[in-house]
Amino acid sequence: MIIVPERAIADLIGSAECFTAVEQVFAAMARKSAYNFPVVRESIGYADALYGFKSGFDRESLSLGLKSGGFWPKNVEKGLTNHQSTVFLFDADTGRCRAVVGGNLLTALRTAAASAISIKYLAREDAKTLGIIGAGHQSTFQLRAAVEQRNFEKVVAWNYHPEMLNRLAEVAREIGLPFEAVDLDRLGAEADVIISITSSFSPSLMASQVRPGTHLACMGTDTKGKQEVDAKLVAASSIFTDELAQAITIGECQHAIADGLIGEADILEIGAVITGDVKGRRSADDITLFDGTGVGLQDLAVAAAVVDLAVREGVAIEVDF
Amino acid sequence: MIIVPERAIADLIGSAECFTAVEQVFAAMARKSAYNFPVVRESIGYADALYGFKSGFDRESLSLGLKSGGFWPKNVEKGLTNHQSTVFLFDADTGRCRAVVGGNLLTALRTAAASAISIKYLAREDAKTLGIIGAGHQSTFQLRAAVEQRNFEKVVAWNYHPEMLNRLAEVAREIGLPFEAVDLDRLGAEADVIISITSSFSPSLMASQVRPGTHLACMGTDTKGKQEVDAKLVAASSIFTDELAQAITIGECQHAIADGLIGEADILEIGAVITGDVKGRRSADDITLFDGTGVGLQDLAVAAAVVDLAVREGVAIEVDF
Repeated sequence: MIIVPERAIADLIGSAECFTAVEQVFAAMARKSAYNFPVVRESIGYADALYGFKSGFDRESLSLGLKSGGFWPKNVEKGLTNHQSTVFLFDADTGRCRAVVGGNLLTALRTAAASAISIKYLAREDAKTLGIIGAGHQSTFQLRAAVEQRNFEKVVAWNYHPEMLNRLAEVAREIGLPFEAVDLDRLGAEADVIISITSSFSPSLMASQVRPGTHLACMGTDTKGKQEVDAKLVAASSIFTDELAQAITIGECQHAIADGLIGEADILEIGAVITGDVKGRRSADDITLFDGTGVGLQDLAVAAAVVDLAVREGVAIEVDF
Repeated sequence: MIIVPERAIADLIGSAECFTAVEQVFAAMARKSAYNFPVVRESIGYADALYGFKSGFDRESLSLGLKSGGFWPKNVEKGLTNHQSTVFLFDADTGRCRAVVGGNLLTALRTAAASAISIKYLAREDAKTLGIIGAGHQSTFQLRAAVEQRNFEKVVAWNYHPEMLNRLAEVAREIGLPFEAVDLDRLGAEADVIISITSSFSPSLMASQVRPGTHLACMGTDTKGKQEVDAKLVAASSIFTDELAQAITIGECQHAIADGLIGEADILEIGAVITGDVKGRRSADDITLFDGTGVGLQDLAVAAAVVDLAVREGVAIEVDF
């Protein structure tokens, strides 16, 4: 059994390798050779924790397994990350546990990879201004992965607590892009690509604030009740997602579906755009929206990639299990 | 993170420690301080494998985690066990992965512990003859655990392929008990306690073959469609189970429920007998039946016990994760 501890991940893998791994598994999902198993998510009634599993199998790469962990809100007091994840990979030929991989950084990277993939396939080629809604830990990962996909010339950002935007400003500076904190009206008016990455339960961005031609990646909604953008904005867009079943139940689409503004047939899976089976953006004026809910197969894909890299670089810990 | 490899388990834990661990968690379930999460079970469309998870949380012992693995029918050709399991324990205070434990022997021991617990609490004190239906790998574990609960004087056994009974005969000889291969009529007529441990999809033992006063532990049915005993026999018994939700869907009770012979209210959880909240056997002539479906909490309980033992004996492998 191979162990890749959390502390080893940052030196092994970056956004480019995660992009490729997630792009491949989204395509495998479209070819129906990879699928996610039902999600288990439990409020355990202890330490206010949410615990569960996301899991699946990709017959093309033979990645089989799960990400387990969850949200421990009191971890921050202990100097630990609130979101704790571990990925377990199994040998698809024998069912034996093949690898245990720290999943915290990988979760951030695979989530950033998903919005970057949506930009590659859905945003206008001439996109110049990147808008970001949200300023938490994850927002910087989304920013770093996004700028690899288009020649962005500026970053505009909004957060409910504007004083938290310093972190994003710092990363933009590092990348070499001008950064401006703006209100949502200006963000919608100026941004060609907008990534939302909040844990909000009511819409921040309204339909009236968004211009034709914009691409939106809604990355924060992964639970019943959460919402980042106006349901009318979803309905006005060409809608794409990672997994239809999650989009309509726990993703950004849940609200437009509940309001009767869209039906399941209005939502396409991004994997089919990657494989070329489905057209992405239809015109320069099309508003495209990616509902990124986060699937177990993404976790398995990046964990499998990091295991290969760890073995190649000789840093995998091998345990005779 | 602590690793306890499969090869270390046999020297660390036996049926007595597993009996105690499972008895405690069944009682915790009755006190509603331990519960199982939804089971994930998938036919993955590769290697004819069934893969999935059983998981849960016990607030009393703080055991949190899952058993993952499944059934790989072609493993036997590779010299591996067809059933492959690994148990992952998490720190309930932080969500970090605490231990990875080989789960093959533990699964056998926790399944044997469950039928032994049912014998302790439900069989007549004067039980002398133990009957076993089934002669697979698991049957020897059921036999070894059962004989610790009553002063059995003889073992009678039946298997669809009688030539396979040698394995059970060997273990009975080792224990020092006379052993006889019998037909099901004789088994029912002579046995005071009957353990069925088959993977049958049609009933072997019929109601007419069982005497008043018998205790039955049906341990093989863990899937929709499987069946070990006549639904009328279930209906004629005082029925107990590990978990009601599993008993009526994937356990032996599924058929008596489907036939309308019993209702959910006729099935009691064994944990409530352990805590003393519910009476077990009502009379010497009562037929008692335990529907052992196998729950994730059993796996967590025995894995937590083995981790404690491994740490105490200095054989746990510690990995800085």
